[in-house]
Amino acid sequence: MARIVMKFGGTSVADINRIRNVARHVKREVDAGHEVAVVVSAMSGKTNELVAWCREASPMHDAREYDAVVASGEQVTAGLLAITLQGMGVHARSWQGWQIPIKTDNAHGAARIQEIDGSFLAKRFGEGQVAVIAGFQGLAPDNRIATLGRGGSDTSAVAIAAAVKADRCDIYTDVDGVYTTDPRIEPKARRLAKISFEEMLEMASLGAKVLQVRSVELAMVHKVRTFVRSSFEDPDAPGMGDFENPPGTLICDEDEILEQQVVTGIAYAKDEAQISLRRVADRPGVAAGIFGPLAEANINVDMIVQNISEDGSRTDMTFTVPSADVAKAVAVLEKNKDQVGFDALQHDEGMAKVSVIGIGMRSHAGVAAIAFKALADRGINIRAITTSEIKISILIDAAYTELAVRTLHSVYGLDKQ
Amino acid sequence: MARIVMKFGGTSVADINRIRNVARHVKREVDAGHEVAVVVSAMSGKTNELVAWCREASPMHDAREYDAVVASGEQVTAGLLAITLQGMGVHARSWQGWQIPIKTDNAHGAARIQEIDGSFLAKRFGEGQVAVIAGFQGLAPDNRIATLGRGGSDTSAVAIAAAVKADRCDIYTDVDGVYTTDPRIEPKARRLAKISFEEMLEMASLGAKVLQVRSVELAMVHKVRTFVRSSFEDPDAPGMGDFENPPGTLICDEDEILEQQVVTGIAYAKDEAQISLRRVADRPGVAAGIFGPLAEANINVDMIVQNISEDGSRTDMTFTVPSADVAKAVAVLEKNKDQVGFDALQHDEGMAKVSVIGIGMRSHAGVAAIAFKALADRGINIRAITTSEIKISILIDAAYTELAVRTLHSVYGLDKQ
Repeated sequence: MARIVMKFGGTSVADINRIRNVARHVKREVDAGHEVAVVVSAMSGKTNELVAWCREASPMHDAREYDAVVASGEQVTAGLLAITLQGMGVHARSWQGWQIPIKTDNAHGAARIQEIDGSFLAKRFGEGQVAVIAGFQGLAPDNRIATLGRGGSDTSAVAIAAAVKADRCDIYTDVDGVYTTDPRIEPKARRLAKISFEEMLEMASLGAKVLQVRSVELAMVHKVRTFVRSSFEDPDAPGMGDFENPPGTLICDEDEILEQQVVTGIAYAKDEAQISLRRVADRPGVAAGIFGPLAEANINVDMIVQNISEDGSRTDMTFTVPSADVAKAVAVLEKNKDQVGFDALQHDEGMAKVSVIGIGMRSHAGVAAIAFKALADRGINIRAITTSEIKISILIDAAYTELAVRTLHSVYGLDKQ
Repeated sequence: MARIVMKFGGTSVADINRIRNVARHVKREVDAGHEVAVVVSAMSGKTNELVAWCREASPMHDAREYDAVVASGEQVTAGLLAITLQGMGVHARSWQGWQIPIKTDNAHGAARIQEIDGSFLAKRFGEGQVAVIAGFQGLAPDNRIATLGRGGSDTSAVAIAAAVKADRCDIYTDVDGVYTTDPRIEPKARRLAKISFEEMLEMASLGAKVLQVRSVELAMVHKVRTFVRSSFEDPDAPGMGDFENPPGTLICDEDEILEQQVVTGIAYAKDEAQISLRRVADRPGVAAGIFGPLAEANINVDMIVQNISEDGSRTDMTFTVPSADVAKAVAVLEKNKDQVGFDALQHDEGMAKVSVIGIGMRSHAGVAAIAFKALADRGINIRAITTSEIKISILIDAAYTELAVRTLHSVYGLDKQ
């Protein structure tokens, strides 16, 4: 017998038929003798509808009221799933964040979970009850509902799994696991049986939209073994209830991954833009003068590259921002031009960032060189490079994205079983 | 300065434009210096959608889960109205039943309010805050949301008005008051400036669907002056903010109504069916033998008439039930035929009940005789009669409903100003 937290996203609970399918997944685990708690998102499209109403009511709406409105989506799903499970003879009961309680901070609209006392849910397990919990929300210190920000249901599930010391947190979604790269670009992409928390974190933040970054961070901190699998498969197909080796991808501590590959996956992010400041005065504090105002304007700056000029007094500063933020970023920089002191500002949109990820890089030299050569062989121009211990990110023209992804996927041997 | 509870129904908050109109009504009262709390229903159609999902999930759904799902409708409206009011510069905040708390009993799906401690809302008034409260729900002893049954938002509003000792409870709806009869049947129907609680209770239970019966009962018990008015009028039209004499109908204690008419209004209910049991054994307990099983089957029996047979040993028992329940009632009676002992069972559908209502009847004789003669003059056959202190109800063929209503409206002088 194990203790499992199962989480189902919006597309998995989009209508009553799909909720019924979800209930069959839950019943399978209950029938196998496991202790089960379930976390659900709002029915697909509902959150957008509620958010749109808030905006229509007032463009500058109060986050506290936004939370009260938007949290209702998950409450509805939780109740409907409990009803469906009961109809199948499963002892189930829905719970909202304020009842457990899932305590958050006061940052309404983007709250962080502060504390979940596991005893409430432990009691439910003891009663043989499947607790169906509204995801994405908790109770703030002001005794009001607080939401965790978009996609927060993944975070709810992992936090609950940590609080109840679950053996596993199963994230059911509309894909059947984490792949070596996006299968829509590279049909030879393979599903990974396991991936480490650190690698998943890089994959998630680089555009593999399987899991929210925050939930992976949380899973890593609390060492919650998190399993990504599909809710759309037949719940009773062979192997689905195999506790040791179900179909999907396990996100776990690297110690659990015996044969670590050098490279685990290729991620990409389109819609990047590059901004270059030419001949910036090279003196202390200049980076703060550039990036401080951009941060204040909530612009996410990435891939910063600085080249020292020949005479050492001037420098070129190049960095990327999301394409959607270029106009805002340029406005902020022009406004601070005199303070920063630069000769010219150039910006190029239509960039893409392609990244090679793998924990094995730590102990293998020359991984980056392989990428650079492979891309050069294909005639793909590299605009910027940044690296971390387990990742190499390369900025290229977006037109070459698919070619670059396929090239890297192949050169690191990810095409092969 | 007065303290007002304002309640807005589903059609009044059906979309953001209407919510904006509602906010203008609220702002008008706030600007006039009044202390205001607001109770809202779900957006028109939302509750039906949520109820349908519960049924689809499982026909025999759990009332606790139904409550968790369905209560979300009012929660959304409360948040949206608070956002809209804030956008207009009104200090507003939404509250749900569990936060105040509005304590109910454990009868999920049709709970009754047990207690509202007025101190929470008194504090909000003290802060100059407009509390926007989700109607139709409270917190049950099991720490779960409980709903009050359909139309329960009227009851929420009156109960809150009683708890905070409001000067008035304004029920904003899609009609502009209570009329002497249904204006769709009798264009000469006049809006009543005032009506007593007792009369309104009869009007409400007899099919004048302006207010829920339970809310009128509650208003009567706690002497909450309740005002029915339209939310669709221009919130800033002349007289709308007149505290002493706004457009609409005041439901109040009969002492407040100086010139009491003998007859106040004519109500009607279509879709009644008549069931007659012929030659029932006339012995003690026979009525219980008939009506006990019907009550157990949740069939609402009305207008019971018993005629003693010539020899005194047998009796005819006639009563009405809603047309929708005829088949069920007949099945129940046939099943108990041997126990009850009757010769024959007849049933007629397509009946209507027309009622004459007026507190003045108490002190005036001959009111009923006027009705009987007027209907006879029109050739309308009376199938059954029941009376109370302030009401005469007459069962007729439904085809004559409109004629009977107009005839009675005229004969009691209600057509005249």
